[in-house]
Amino acid sequence: MDKNEFRKRGHELVDWMADYLESKESYPVTPDVEPGDIYAKLPDNAPEEGEEFDRIFADFQRIIMPGMTHWQNPAFFGYFPANNSEPSILAEMLMSTLGAQCMSWITSPAAAELEEKVCDWLREAKGINSNWKGCIHDTASTATLSAILAAREKHSGFQINKSGFTGKEKFRVYSSSHVHSSIDKAVKISGIGEENLVRVDVDENFSMIPEALERAIRHDLAQGLTPLMVISALGTTSSTAVDPIGEITRVCRDYQVWHHIDAAFAGTALLLPEYQTLIHGHDEADSYVFNPHKWMMTNFDCTVMFLKEPEYLVKTFSLTPEYLKTDLDEKVNNYRDWGIPLGRRFRALKLWFVLRSYGLEGLRKKLRHHLHLTKKAESWIRADSRLEILAPVNFNTICFRYVHHDLSTEKLNEINESWMSTANATHKLFFSHTKLNDKYVIRWVIGQTDVEEKHIEAAWVLLKEQLHKTINS
Amino acid sequence: MDKNEFRKRGHELVDWMADYLESKESYPVTPDVEPGDIYAKLPDNAPEEGEEFDRIFADFQRIIMPGMTHWQNPAFFGYFPANNSEPSILAEMLMSTLGAQCMSWITSPAAAELEEKVCDWLREAKGINSNWKGCIHDTASTATLSAILAAREKHSGFQINKSGFTGKEKFRVYSSSHVHSSIDKAVKISGIGEENLVRVDVDENFSMIPEALERAIRHDLAQGLTPLMVISALGTTSSTAVDPIGEITRVCRDYQVWHHIDAAFAGTALLLPEYQTLIHGHDEADSYVFNPHKWMMTNFDCTVMFLKEPEYLVKTFSLTPEYLKTDLDEKVNNYRDWGIPLGRRFRALKLWFVLRSYGLEGLRKKLRHHLHLTKKAESWIRADSRLEILAPVNFNTICFRYVHHDLSTEKLNEINESWMSTANATHKLFFSHTKLNDKYVIRWVIGQTDVEEKHIEAAWVLLKEQLHKTINS
Ligand SMILES: Cc1ncc(COP(=O)(O)O)c(C=O)c1O
Ligand SMILES: Cc1ncc(COP(=O)(O)O)c(C=O)c1O
Repeated sequence: MDKNEFRKRGHELVDWMADYLESKESYPVTPDVEPGDIYAKLPDNAPEEGEEFDRIFADFQRIIMPGMTHWQNPAFFGYFPANNSEPSILAEMLMSTLGAQCMSWITSPAAAELEEKVCDWLREAKGINSNWKGCIHDTASTATLSAILAAREKHSGFQINKSGFTGKEKFRVYSSSHVHSSIDKAVKISGIGEENLVRVDVDENFSMIPEALERAIRHDLAQGLTPLMVISALGTTSSTAVDPIGEITRVCRDYQVWHHIDAAFAGTALLLPEYQTLIHGHDEADSYVFNPHKWMMTNFDCTVMFLKEPEYLVKTFSLTPEYLKTDLDEKVNNYRDWGIPLGRRFRALKLWFVLRSYGLEGLRKKLRHHLHLTKKAESWIRADSRLEILAPVNFNTICFRYVHHDLSTEKLNEINESWMSTANATHKLFFSHTKLNDKYVIRWVIGQTDVEEKHIEAAWVLLKEQLHKTINS
Repeated sequence: MDKNEFRKRGHELVDWMADYLESKESYPVTPDVEPGDIYAKLPDNAPEEGEEFDRIFADFQRIIMPGMTHWQNPAFFGYFPANNSEPSILAEMLMSTLGAQCMSWITSPAAAELEEKVCDWLREAKGINSNWKGCIHDTASTATLSAILAAREKHSGFQINKSGFTGKEKFRVYSSSHVHSSIDKAVKISGIGEENLVRVDVDENFSMIPEALERAIRHDLAQGLTPLMVISALGTTSSTAVDPIGEITRVCRDYQVWHHIDAAFAGTALLLPEYQTLIHGHDEADSYVFNPHKWMMTNFDCTVMFLKEPEYLVKTFSLTPEYLKTDLDEKVNNYRDWGIPLGRRFRALKLWFVLRSYGLEGLRKKLRHHLHLTKKAESWIRADSRLEILAPVNFNTICFRYVHHDLSTEKLNEINESWMSTANATHKLFFSHTKLNDKYVIRWVIGQTDVEEKHIEAAWVLLKEQLHKTINS
């Protein structure tokens, strides 16, 4: 494809993209396909000769589009959102055109310095200690893994990096019993082992009980085990429960344990000053991660991590082979040393576009709107005597279910599962579920960039219809 | 920004992007900035109120552009390229607009099935065993780390994942002494330790000596250590040396060691049937990784890994918490279980666009053109009696230096370093260096998507001018 054709096709795509964004709610939220359907429609081999773009794009519309889940449909209420926004998409267009690989300062100075600056901006806006420094990762999974590795190396004096585990380190990592699966994955990867992830009891709000944490640490110490790290959640995945950050920080300080705060989804709420009390007392914690790619209108992937002492992270990962050495290595941030991958995209650009285009007030307005819609939906559910809400609605996630005192938990689980499935089967909306105290609950997350009252109203009507069908079937 | 404005701005950006791609060689390859220059130009805080796009874009042009390294300038000859191309950029535009998060089949069925299919296409086109299966990662760093973890877990019967290292596992990983730094990083992360990365001797072509590998394995076995894995390189980073894949596979089979092939850069050359002899005998190896984001005209990031027995990888990473369970989990590929991060971009789309738009013949033509230009540049260097080439030119990377029999290695290193620096300081091109047997060499990698004869000619003229100045100063 030559540059002229690129111009032409680029314009065509922009029109398609703008149309898509305007009409995204008319697409079925989930596709009506069976496993293997799409695969079977694609030829077995790559074409030998290049094809016309018209043909490729026609196949995109004919084969791919009907098989997509439309995460940007405002009626996508499942998991957590992975929001995009217009300024973020525009930034992605520039990023892919520049094609800069941002592993080192020298390989794109503006990218490295913009990364430092937008992280500073976010740190200040979120009320995080001004001495901390930030960096961008692809996902919270890898950022938290990086923090675990930094804690491991700080504790071992960088000996595990050097010689591997000796078997003497009996590390223990603590989280609430509602910990996200990415942390299970990270303790496995880092060689600590899933059995050494201690799942501390939660209270009736699904928040970690700091006394239980302290007991677990003391118990482990008595057994000769080594408390390494606590991972607290500011917004668990199941129900957006918030662990008591300040109290956990105090326990961590007393026992000299690294405190990492996983605010992957809900961390965006700290842009609202009224939510910043949630991290009061975090100053002596060690690291904090959140995903602008979830609720901050920034295209996936984009995770931001802040650290009190980034030097431990950098020392964990830095290693400069001859072919990467430059004169400036002492004076600059080479962000390849702040994480696992060598190569890096220019992700700072989309954060910059989003922050400037919305402004902090614009972002706050969006968030408050989502929170306001959530209060509405919550009040509808509370007013319906057939339903119950099983966790505090701390942000924009409501965990609810149908309940009936005559029925066992198993029976209720079946009914709620079938209710959600039939609702999702309309393809007009999408919910996902979790279990709270073994009870199947539907999670309603109201956070897509463009979600409005009409979308939650329609969802509510549909939910009630489907419930009627489900309990009368 | 509303949808109308997005349409307008999108069209403006497409024109800017097409202009950029047309005129990219007129930009200085590297920027003329000092550490801190860009950072100082950016305000200390995010704006409270949203700003006009005109202003943001003007700042992008005024502050960011003069601080960028232009990886897509055809005179970017450093490191390895991170090529983009027109169809790949178009795909990125669609990816960011759909904003699909492709962690599971259900979260975007078409993305999961297209991923499987384009990996099949690449496997067939590259002559890799038809029974292997592929998946997409962000970078070779994380893909190779995943392979190491799969080997670790296969060997330990998934016990390290479960309980952590006990100290009984004395794993050893082998590579050539020219191993890429991402492998050092991976043995650290996985808890094996850098000291247990055994750097096997290379021959005069910088290729691993299989007899030396076998000796190292036997030596370790005699010491009670456990050979876990060999990582061979199909194209080392310094000089694109190729380890003898078939012979290494045989050694690995004899000692039951996982054989991972790191073809990050040069793997793209396997699209040329005449290069497929390089992986002859790979059938009994275990895994293979290459980066379409380097030399295959596919925007960073995009790595493809193939595995003989993907079940070990999947078992290493899979773990399905309640909130991610679906009825279909047994029947589909949930690619979150094939790597480290949970969330995933829809990277298959850009591979599909690139493969179809170029066609395999179109890609081969590009590669052959780069190889042809490299032969030219090589002949110029060989014809200049002041210069020497210090490694076989296996693909499109030439490692050369100025040499003079009166001068010590240190003195020559100084001269060559200063030669490269002054050449780079013109900002008209960019080279990076390495050391081969302690000798400083300039690496000339001829692989940017649009590099043509005129670019290498101009580079050659400039190199000679700067050499003249350097040795006469
Ligand atoms: C609390 C929490 N932590 C971590 C993650 C992982 O996010 P990512 O996909 O960015 O790794 C999630 C995802 O939902 C999450 O909710
Ligand atoms: C041989 C080799 N392996 C691995 C890598 C790492 O690539 P990535 O940035 O995709 O992790 C490189 C990068 O140049 C390489 O040359």
